Amino acid sequence: MASEHTTGQHRVVIIGGGFGGLNVARSLRKVPVDITLIDRQNFHLFQPLLYQVATGSVGTGDIAAPLREILRRQRNARVLMDEVTDIDARHQRVVTESGSVPYDTLVVAAGVRNHYHGRDGWAKVAGGLKTIEDAVAIRNQILRVFEMAELETDADARRALMTFVVIGAGPTGVELAGALAELAHRTLVGEFRSIDPASARIVLVDAANRVLREFPESLSAKAKHALERLGVEVHLSQVVKDITTDGIDLETDAGRQHIPARSIVWAAGVAGASLGAAVERATGCQLDRLGRVMVQSDLTVPGHPEIFVVGDLAHVEYHGQALPCVAPPAIQGGRYIARLIRARLAGRTLQPFTYFDKGMLATIGRSAAVAEFRGFKFWGFLAWVVWLVIHIFYLIGFENRIVVLVQWANTYVARRRGSRVILDVTASRRWSDGSP
Amino acid sequence: MASEHTTGQHRVVIIGGGFGGLNVARSLRKVPVDITLIDRQNFHLFQPLLYQVATGSVGTGDIAAPLREILRRQRNARVLMDEVTDIDARHQRVVTESGSVPYDTLVVAAGVRNHYHGRDGWAKVAGGLKTIEDAVAIRNQILRVFEMAELETDADARRALMTFVVIGAGPTGVELAGALAELAHRTLVGEFRSIDPASARIVLVDAANRVLREFPESLSAKAKHALERLGVEVHLSQVVKDITTDGIDLETDAGRQHIPARSIVWAAGVAGASLGAAVERATGCQLDRLGRVMVQSDLTVPGHPEIFVVGDLAHVEYHGQALPCVAPPAIQGGRYIARLIRARLAGRTLQPFTYFDKGMLATIGRSAAVAEFRGFKFWGFLAWVVWLVIHIFYLIGFENRIVVLVQWANTYVARRRGSRVILDVTASRRWSDGSP
Repeated sequence: MASEHTTGQHRVVIIGGGFGGLNVARSLRKVPVDITLIDRQNFHLFQPLLYQVATGSVGTGDIAAPLREILRRQRNARVLMDEVTDIDARHQRVVTESGSVPYDTLVVAAGVRNHYHGRDGWAKVAGGLKTIEDAVAIRNQILRVFEMAELETDADARRALMTFVVIGAGPTGVELAGALAELAHRTLVGEFRSIDPASARIVLVDAANRVLREFPESLSAKAKHALERLGVEVHLSQVVKDITTDGIDLETDAGRQHIPARSIVWAAGVAGASLGAAVERATGCQLDRLGRVMVQSDLTVPGHPEIFVVGDLAHVEYHGQALPCVAPPAIQGGRYIARLIRARLAGRTLQPFTYFDKGMLATIGRSAAVAEFRGFKFWGFLAWVVWLVIHIFYLIGFENRIVVLVQWANTYVARRRGSRVILDVTASRRWSDGSP
Repeated sequence: MASEHTTGQHRVVIIGGGFGGLNVARSLRKVPVDITLIDRQNFHLFQPLLYQVATGSVGTGDIAAPLREILRRQRNARVLMDEVTDIDARHQRVVTESGSVPYDTLVVAAGVRNHYHGRDGWAKVAGGLKTIEDAVAIRNQILRVFEMAELETDADARRALMTFVVIGAGPTGVELAGALAELAHRTLVGEFRSIDPASARIVLVDAANRVLREFPESLSAKAKHALERLGVEVHLSQVVKDITTDGIDLETDAGRQHIPARSIVWAAGVAGASLGAAVERATGCQLDRLGRVMVQSDLTVPGHPEIFVVGDLAHVEYHGQALPCVAPPAIQGGRYIARLIRARLAGRTLQPFTYFDKGMLATIGRSAAVAEFRGFKFWGFLAWVVWLVIHIFYLIGFENRIVVLVQWANTYVARRRGSRVILDVTASRRWSDGSP
């Protein structure tokens, strides 16, 4: 049972230590409130670099900063590592696995999870890339199939082991496919004696007729070209019909196509975390078709000015469209909520949340990227430098960003992949089932 | 089934990519032989820093170098990630999970595993620290119990969560206990609101009457003092009678003592890997009481000049004593075997293996150590600098040692613990059970 603060101050409970939740907490650091940040993991994850863990460029610790370390000096905040199971809006408390925590203001920032559009069975054969565990699983798989291929004498089996399919050509899929191609076609070349990693197939599939469909068409074309230069096969206007342990079935204009592949990654969709449904039950609010909470223009839930939803889990209408599931809306939303809480404590209120569109950015491999900002388009090395600068100085909002980024840039510039451990996770389970 | 080389050259098969096996392979780089290095993992593990992974100082990738990367340019060597299940001395081949590999010369360097002196049930409640998976399991456990303690309101339960017992006061136990004390009593202080990590108990237990009993007595005393200054409770002359999920039972001069503890690490003994028994079956050789292979003065198995055993798995008598299970005998043994193979190919032979004793070294926390070299004793900061220099310039025998050590020193000097991820290993299992 979680112990309660007893300072008598306004209690702000934040569920989730991602960009949204953390920015609420940090922006309240000088405000006389009692903050409780609850997360089921002990770290803030820098999700934009998750694909680099999946492809062995950086280690898990390089993109995961302990929440306690980030909030160590913020005396008005405490961190609980716990799983929120329900929200009790009537009694203003959240129910967790170990007890309950009362709130005066609640911020739900629980993010999204992988979503298979009704084909949940695919989750077993095509993992997503949303969590650090996802990334470790993908890394284990990628490195392992090359090892298995080196031992395999059957040509077909070997080809299936060396075929990687990424489903979904949004930013995650594009970045993962590019990094995978660099891993196979550059880093691993020369390390095997029976196979040639350069012959590995990296297949990127999307039902749309272009990659990065949120970007301007000209940048989609440039991104596709950059991917193909890295050796990625880009399959557009193709619909996934089935995924099995043998491979993937695609429907194309020319009929069905089967691609034998042992490694398939799902980057084709996310849905709101299950806490979205808890908010719905507690408040009667609406969810969109992806299970995200429809919030009002001040990011609160209708009829509950004390409950905010922010980040990927929030469906925020802006200029007639939902804001995308990326970091900037979460960061800006989190800061807005903190300002609004502070204003309310002073008896004031605020204008509705306004979003400052910082544009879009995606990297393709080591030194190419595409970027769009208010009609200006960048691509190639220039866009990559923009991407690097933004990641160094803007996105990473925690204290040790220099150390983290120096480590990472070091690995990156040296063309090494610093973290190529195939972790036998079953052997790490001893204490991890939570029993002792 | 593993494909065979067909160059007609002398085939050297090495089982195990630790210090012993890797040094055989690397020292044969200019010799016209066909080398096959078989390991069940894809990396060389720098075991001396394993305790730093367990306590979150460095990530797994920082002390694990891919075997393929190390041997990439050595064209006479190939690496197979495979599990050796048996040795067929008559047909001169090793049997693996995926097939068999013929040899002209075999080097068995399979190392040791944790050994519970007949109390195998203890393995479930007191994990050892021999593998990278062990280290991740310990790290998960240490970080998790602090999180659980922060949520726990029962004082006794909280104390058990914040009590860590390390069994065995050899170098591994001493280094782990010291690092654990620094983690709890320094790094984590100020990060919690309900508990005080500085009050965590770190208990180091040994049946002997001093720590580091292989060291001169004066250094044992200094090490004990350094541990106590870090806040480690050193329990000597105490025998472990039982270990359960509740804690540990010790037999002391004053009778039985029960220490409630949720985290217990076993550093009290190792035994030869199961391949030692395979060598015994195949050759009729003797094993010592720890299951290590008794080798002759040229590191071969009696009656089998073509089979070498090296490293921790070898029982090498030297000046009437068995060489200890540390890196230098493995490194020197590996180099000797390579020289002997080369000599034999030239129709010559070599004098028996001689060991150059480089002394002993153990660290206690961030900037203290004890060292002994040919009767000279060092301690404190000076010994720690010696330890650092040796680890930078001598022990790490792979190409990227500078990058690895700069990363590590950076983390170390900055007093950060760069890798404090609690990895939910069950969530990383998707592909890792090997099924697809």
